[in-house]
Amino acid sequence: MKAVPQDVLEELGAQIILGNTYHLYLRPGHELVRSMGGLHRFMSWERALLTDSGGFQVFSLSDLRKITEEGVSFRSHLDGSSHLFTPERSIEIQMALGADIIMAFDECTEYPADRGRARASMEMTLRWAKRSKDYFEAHKNEVPWPENKSGRTQALLGIVQGGMYPDLRKECAERLLELDFPGYAIGGLSVGEPREKTLEIIGETLEVLPKDKPRYVMGVGYPDEITRYALIGVDMMDCVLPTRAARHGLLFTSEGRMNIKNVRYAQDQNPPDLKCRCKVCSRYSRAYLRHLYVAGEALAGVLNTVHNLAYYLDTMRAVRHAIKLGDLSGILSGPVFMA
Amino acid sequence: MKAVPQDVLEELGAQIILGNTYHLYLRPGHELVRSMGGLHRFMSWERALLTDSGGFQVFSLSDLRKITEEGVSFRSHLDGSSHLFTPERSIEIQMALGADIIMAFDECTEYPADRGRARASMEMTLRWAKRSKDYFEAHKNEVPWPENKSGRTQALLGIVQGGMYPDLRKECAERLLELDFPGYAIGGLSVGEPREKTLEIIGETLEVLPKDKPRYVMGVGYPDEITRYALIGVDMMDCVLPTRAARHGLLFTSEGRMNIKNVRYAQDQNPPDLKCRCKVCSRYSRAYLRHLYVAGEALAGVLNTVHNLAYYLDTMRAVRHAIKLGDLSGILSGPVFMA
Repeated sequence: MKAVPQDVLEELGAQIILGNTYHLYLRPGHELVRSMGGLHRFMSWERALLTDSGGFQVFSLSDLRKITEEGVSFRSHLDGSSHLFTPERSIEIQMALGADIIMAFDECTEYPADRGRARASMEMTLRWAKRSKDYFEAHKNEVPWPENKSGRTQALLGIVQGGMYPDLRKECAERLLELDFPGYAIGGLSVGEPREKTLEIIGETLEVLPKDKPRYVMGVGYPDEITRYALIGVDMMDCVLPTRAARHGLLFTSEGRMNIKNVRYAQDQNPPDLKCRCKVCSRYSRAYLRHLYVAGEALAGVLNTVHNLAYYLDTMRAVRHAIKLGDLSGILSGPVFMA
Repeated sequence: MKAVPQDVLEELGAQIILGNTYHLYLRPGHELVRSMGGLHRFMSWERALLTDSGGFQVFSLSDLRKITEEGVSFRSHLDGSSHLFTPERSIEIQMALGADIIMAFDECTEYPADRGRARASMEMTLRWAKRSKDYFEAHKNEVPWPENKSGRTQALLGIVQGGMYPDLRKECAERLLELDFPGYAIGGLSVGEPREKTLEIIGETLEVLPKDKPRYVMGVGYPDEITRYALIGVDMMDCVLPTRAARHGLLFTSEGRMNIKNVRYAQDQNPPDLKCRCKVCSRYSRAYLRHLYVAGEALAGVLNTVHNLAYYLDTMRAVRHAIKLGDLSGILSGPVFMA
């Protein structure tokens, strides 16, 4: 987690971290991580880990060479070296990393995509899901690294694609169910479509995905978005927003977005969020955080990230609490963040 | 403290932080800090603070314009704006910042400097010390900022200069004593002279400075250096080395210097320092720290800094312990770090 040590994440109550397969494959390399006993041991994190399939970063970061039925060939954004990710390779790498939850290799359909293109992409994602599953089943009983004494096992989740077409999404979900994954993700969202479309696609897809297995929407979202998604049945989400925004001086607060670099905070003695009890809001003023940011201090990134993570974790704690109480009134009355 | 939050510094047992007057004057500005209740309150640090006079950074960072009897005119390294530091101005700024210990405005004599130049510089430092003291005495009973309820008072320390000439150092120290400061610093060292010369100058100067007042050597040094200086009677030291080296991947350990970026550590499961009990060495491997550094992760700077600070603070704890026990044997048997 950029800029934040693991003990601080534990203290914040973080239960799971997502590791990027693309980045870890390139540096330090999955074989190195395997030889170090897996990602849990390498990074000293005993709580849950999830790795993505690597596909998304290949599409967004690398010099993409070619997508074929076999897989995706690309050049590293670090040194230009050539690589090939296939479903089998992605699972092999993720098994070496050893996260608790790993993801099928999919094609994240671009936006916009017409119906024909969305179907073709979805069909390939389904074939790749089958190959991911086959490889995983054939190798899952191999101890993924020699030093592993934790007895951890891995769960491979399937990913629903289908562009912005609810019927394709439903068909994709139904056909994934035949492969019997222990959980399902909805990918290819938050790629530029209107937010209401995101909500619609999630809602329609959830109608097909079983309630008794984890349902995971990838790459979302603002605090008010993740609240809405959780309330319609989403169990898991991931997003760079709290950490990336923090490094750019954007704080999430109970009063909405706060651009801490704004001159209006130069002499503001209040904590970033008057209602937050995180270790940043308990101790530092807006004026101090603004100074750190404007002066380019690394500590700005550290403290802003800690606050934003606290805000997100508090948001989900409130959602869980409301669900347990059976009283969802008021849970959507928080600030509006969506752009 | 770059990259490390205040609660971590407290946990490490840090008792005092040095703030750079030059930096704080330029950004966020001493008037802003004053209006926020002083540096203690602004940065949320209740333990001791010391500010330097600003002179050293003016000489080393700014576009220096002119040194005259009045003071030093310079252009900001940030925006090229013109400024003037005089002894009176330096003390005024330091009173606004409100650190517990503040420093007289001196001229850090360059190295090498011939005897005539060293004497002239020393004489100006003495005249500036008098002006610093006069300004401080005339204003010290003014409450430095309206919101200050802490009842803190400030102590102004004098600074000995005199280049690499022991007799000039002694003369400077003797004439500073006449001004009756509550503590004395030795400045203008670690400017390129041989380490044995540094030790000699400190030793000769300490013969003049009273043992019952704090004696502070500015801008030193490696762990083995600060141990040697402490053992001949130095009470305080400051240095960027533990933090700056950390950000460049250099760790101080019980086995000597460790360049964590070295490929030899790529698969090294050991903690950075086998004998260290800091929170970094308790949890992370050399392999992980190397990965963070090579990948350019901000967390590398955070964790390396925490370890180096722990190493320095442990070094001084060991010195204090040995002094209390009256047994200094073995205290100089640690690793050699000096370049």
